[in-house]
Amino acid sequence: MNFCSNCGKPVLYQVPPGDDRSRYCCEACGEVHYQNPKLVVGSIPESDDKLLLCRRAIEPCYGMWTLPAGYLENGETAADGAIRETLEEAQARVDILAPYALFNICHVNQIYLMFRARLKDNNFRPGSESLEVKLFREEDIPWEEIAFRVIDATLRQYYADRKNGSFPFRMGNIAIPR
Amino acid sequence: MNFCSNCGKPVLYQVPPGDDRSRYCCEACGEVHYQNPKLVVGSIPESDDKLLLCRRAIEPCYGMWTLPAGYLENGETAADGAIRETLEEAQARVDILAPYALFNICHVNQIYLMFRARLKDNNFRPGSESLEVKLFREEDIPWEEIAFRVIDATLRQYYADRKNGSFPFRMGNIAIPR
Repeated sequence: MNFCSNCGKPVLYQVPPGDDRSRYCCEACGEVHYQNPKLVVGSIPESDDKLLLCRRAIEPCYGMWTLPAGYLENGETAADGAIRETLEEAQARVDILAPYALFNICHVNQIYLMFRARLKDNNFRPGSESLEVKLFREEDIPWEEIAFRVIDATLRQYYADRKNGSFPFRMGNIAIPR
Repeated sequence: MNFCSNCGKPVLYQVPPGDDRSRYCCEACGEVHYQNPKLVVGSIPESDDKLLLCRRAIEPCYGMWTLPAGYLENGETAADGAIRETLEEAQARVDILAPYALFNICHVNQIYLMFRARLKDNNFRPGSESLEVKLFREEDIPWEEIAFRVIDATLRQYYADRKNGSFPFRMGNIAIPR
């Protein structure tokens, strides 16, 4: 951020009066521009004993496999965002079963919220951001080609819980790789 | 948003190429300014059979009672944000027990995530945003003076679940009042 989005004058990065951390501040109009983490919502689409994965047609991680997920938009519920992302990336219609896992990715200011979901039918096909969408049995999951660590963590937690036959709400952190 | 925070030129509110909704776009530098919901994190601080509430020293809802909660900051986990807000508003130290409830407040682009928490000690006192902080038994909760509907909904869900002796993760919506 270089300029005030309110008045167009240059901003300073400094601690506002009464605050305890630096923000982008406009000395011309007085506006303080807060920046906060973004929520990424996604689904784990089940069909019988299989899960639907998407092979990415965009960077980062072009060609790798992921679960449908993306930024929550203004005006939508977290579950509706997960449904929309699943439709956009896999042209797949799902019913949300339950919120399942929250992952903090602090170094990129993202919070992931993943929902268990059930495919309504098998009429899925790649959206514009996917090369391919496909149902996988656990033994066929391409573990070496999963796009993001948060997706790998989600899938591993899911299969561990499935063995126990219950899916309590899970929370975890994805730290900076060493 | 009136001006591009990147280059300072005026922005247009229009649908970017390949997108499906309007965004603030800069025709000078090409930047698209996405706006997304903010995550509010808070705690339900327990001490034996009592909960800690804060009486607000700021608007909106000056003088009303609330649970400690506020915007998640960049770089912190959701649980750490709830701990920080509890410290700021009630000068109270808590251990997080579990994530408990997610509420969508779509008309203000907020997602609330509330954690059950346990007070480490009874050395609490009002922070700068509180007039008073106090432990309440269920029968003493000032239901007519609760600051926000999301806090009212959180407390009611909490007491309903407490009667059943278990706290599954809950999800709800706070709609525009009629």
